[in-house]
Amino acid sequence: MALNKILVAQGGGPTAVINQSLVGVVMEARRHKGIDLVYGARHGVRGIVNEDFVDLTQETSHNLELVAGTPSSALGSTRDKPDLAYCQRIFHVLKAHGIGHFFYIGGNDSSDTVRIVSEQARQAGYPLRSIHIPKTIDNDLVGSDHTPGFPSAARFVAQAFAGANLDNAALPGVYLGVVMGRHAGFLTAASALGKKFPDDGPHLIYLPERVFVLEQFLADVKAMVARHGRCVIAVSEGIHDAAGQPILAQLAKDLERDDHGNVQLSGTGLLADLLCEEIKAKLGIKRVRGDTFGYLQRSFIGCVSDVDQREAREVGEKAVQFAMWGVNGEHRDGSVAIQRTGYYSADYSLLPLEAVAGKTRVMEDLFISESGTDVTDAFRLYLRPLLGSGLPDAYRLRPAPVAKVLAV
Amino acid sequence: MALNKILVAQGGGPTAVINQSLVGVVMEARRHKGIDLVYGARHGVRGIVNEDFVDLTQETSHNLELVAGTPSSALGSTRDKPDLAYCQRIFHVLKAHGIGHFFYIGGNDSSDTVRIVSEQARQAGYPLRSIHIPKTIDNDLVGSDHTPGFPSAARFVAQAFAGANLDNAALPGVYLGVVMGRHAGFLTAASALGKKFPDDGPHLIYLPERVFVLEQFLADVKAMVARHGRCVIAVSEGIHDAAGQPILAQLAKDLERDDHGNVQLSGTGLLADLLCEEIKAKLGIKRVRGDTFGYLQRSFIGCVSDVDQREAREVGEKAVQFAMWGVNGEHRDGSVAIQRTGYYSADYSLLPLEAVAGKTRVMEDLFISESGTDVTDAFRLYLRPLLGSGLPDAYRLRPAPVAKVLAV
Repeated sequence: MALNKILVAQGGGPTAVINQSLVGVVMEARRHKGIDLVYGARHGVRGIVNEDFVDLTQETSHNLELVAGTPSSALGSTRDKPDLAYCQRIFHVLKAHGIGHFFYIGGNDSSDTVRIVSEQARQAGYPLRSIHIPKTIDNDLVGSDHTPGFPSAARFVAQAFAGANLDNAALPGVYLGVVMGRHAGFLTAASALGKKFPDDGPHLIYLPERVFVLEQFLADVKAMVARHGRCVIAVSEGIHDAAGQPILAQLAKDLERDDHGNVQLSGTGLLADLLCEEIKAKLGIKRVRGDTFGYLQRSFIGCVSDVDQREAREVGEKAVQFAMWGVNGEHRDGSVAIQRTGYYSADYSLLPLEAVAGKTRVMEDLFISESGTDVTDAFRLYLRPLLGSGLPDAYRLRPAPVAKVLAV
Repeated sequence: MALNKILVAQGGGPTAVINQSLVGVVMEARRHKGIDLVYGARHGVRGIVNEDFVDLTQETSHNLELVAGTPSSALGSTRDKPDLAYCQRIFHVLKAHGIGHFFYIGGNDSSDTVRIVSEQARQAGYPLRSIHIPKTIDNDLVGSDHTPGFPSAARFVAQAFAGANLDNAALPGVYLGVVMGRHAGFLTAASALGKKFPDDGPHLIYLPERVFVLEQFLADVKAMVARHGRCVIAVSEGIHDAAGQPILAQLAKDLERDDHGNVQLSGTGLLADLLCEEIKAKLGIKRVRGDTFGYLQRSFIGCVSDVDQREAREVGEKAVQFAMWGVNGEHRDGSVAIQRTGYYSADYSLLPLEAVAGKTRVMEDLFISESGTDVTDAFRLYLRPLLGSGLPDAYRLRPAPVAKVLAV
């Protein structure tokens, strides 16, 4: 049996550009003579064990390009996190269908799945090539400069805070926006890129890389309100106390946990509501508003970084190229990573799966200001080129006060 | 004293295009010989009574154009709702500064302020011309086809639901998005314009124009999940029971009886959380996510309808033209209204202030489907041209299933 079929699947939370990677795989595969058929699994690994495959070879280039420009996982996704037995079933199905190459687009959980499947194939002496294609709005994969999907979500967060700051300047008070990111604060930190003038918000940024102390938070807000007459705050959903306990988990008892044992932080406005309540009660500030950006930050259609789009396409293309031609002639499994080679320019490498799988990158110290509530210029310089072209900009009237004629 | 000064101010909630109207006034005023100075009041009527004026005549055309393209009220806004005494102070200041024309950009509260100020001037025999310039994302001004600000917010809501639907299709479950609009459901109904394929969400839309019955809501959701394996729901923040009692108050009370949650939480995420909780508890559905669009829907920078931009500019221009040249030679105070003259084309009229002030338009019956949980084609036809050009679009892979080789 000639292993001339490849399989591609998408796992975890969708992003604005995850279909660019899918289409990158399909389009690149079309020009390789060693590949006859490109299968897609519906809803990630679940689709594999259920043999729920579609033949992507029968899709037109035109429609593939349209799908590439559409956010969210076109093949469907899953939250299943396969254990050894699950991965053995995956391998069993791949073998039965004569799949020679397996491409899985996802985050660090997905890279771990690829690692186990790769291991199974090696133990069975089955010539499977397994490649992990990176994707996550959290930007938490180790070994990569950044991950596809993050720049577009970061752009959404930056634009959201740029707008929220203008709204808050028009109707002063305290505004708090809760941003996704369980362990890594990159997406929350992106709020800083919405700032233009020195007195613009976000005035305070709370990251999961730093311990959250409620009393300090309230003192910070109080000081900012005293200084600016208002305060815009960016808060990561993953903020926690010194013991690592999520601030949200301290407040609600019946918290939903997913299959990975993680507490459900997204899809609820509770954290924002609670922090606003604290500000109102303890600081006596009347106009306090909280938003939870929720699914909008990863699913909103029409907010995308063109740099992110192109790179997401390229990681898909490179995955097929690494699989078919190897790296410097050496054929091995791995995880595609983005390396920054200039300001701004990127190249791609194939990391060993063990170097990425199940590991979590968090924000490096050099990206976080000493106060712990702001980012550094190093972070601004890091993120700006990723946000892409055409970022909307905010302008102000210049002051030209008129003398009073009545009041003293 | 020659009344060659005009005053412009912005009130109520900011919109994406409210500065277009401001700049429309300023730019149009520059070409009228009868106008020497254009003052702006900082933070609406509050800025008037405090004599907090800026001289907009000293601003460059270039920067005015940049400000016009910036969302939120560049002059600042206020939530003050002036009573008679407040309006008398406003009039007192206008008189002291020799203001001949007063332009107030705002919603129906603002139009009522203009009405009272206009009345004060008439009683005092002071030759003030007072014009209300419409603005509200709620689209609830009577006498207008629609109001500036609504189309851009509607575009945000449509794009948000288009994306949320894709996300929900990738990871099936129930998704619920709460949209602004206390009395008028126009903005919530705009979610329907995010729908492309017949099985796309939003599958259910709950408007304040219809009575919300929790049991019926749960039955609707159950039926949709049975049909599609998932359900995307748009809910207006203003949903209420038959007695007019907000559902939020009702559910929060239930929660208090169950000693479950925090009734003190008056934050914006509560309604979504409570409805999600009901779905989880009563329907036994595990994956239920709720977002509250909050301030993003009115302040997000970079989501704007070009039709809305142009019309918001025109209502500002027309306000000055109506003030300087009258309507068919007749000089009177009034509120500028948009009239639809073709598909799509608009013209402007000057309504009597009494016809607009303090009145609230809600969605007409012909816009709401018989089921009460969808919009009609009449509404789709009404809204689509207002959303403007370049609306992002969603595409799908076409089905090409692969035969199973293992499973039965």
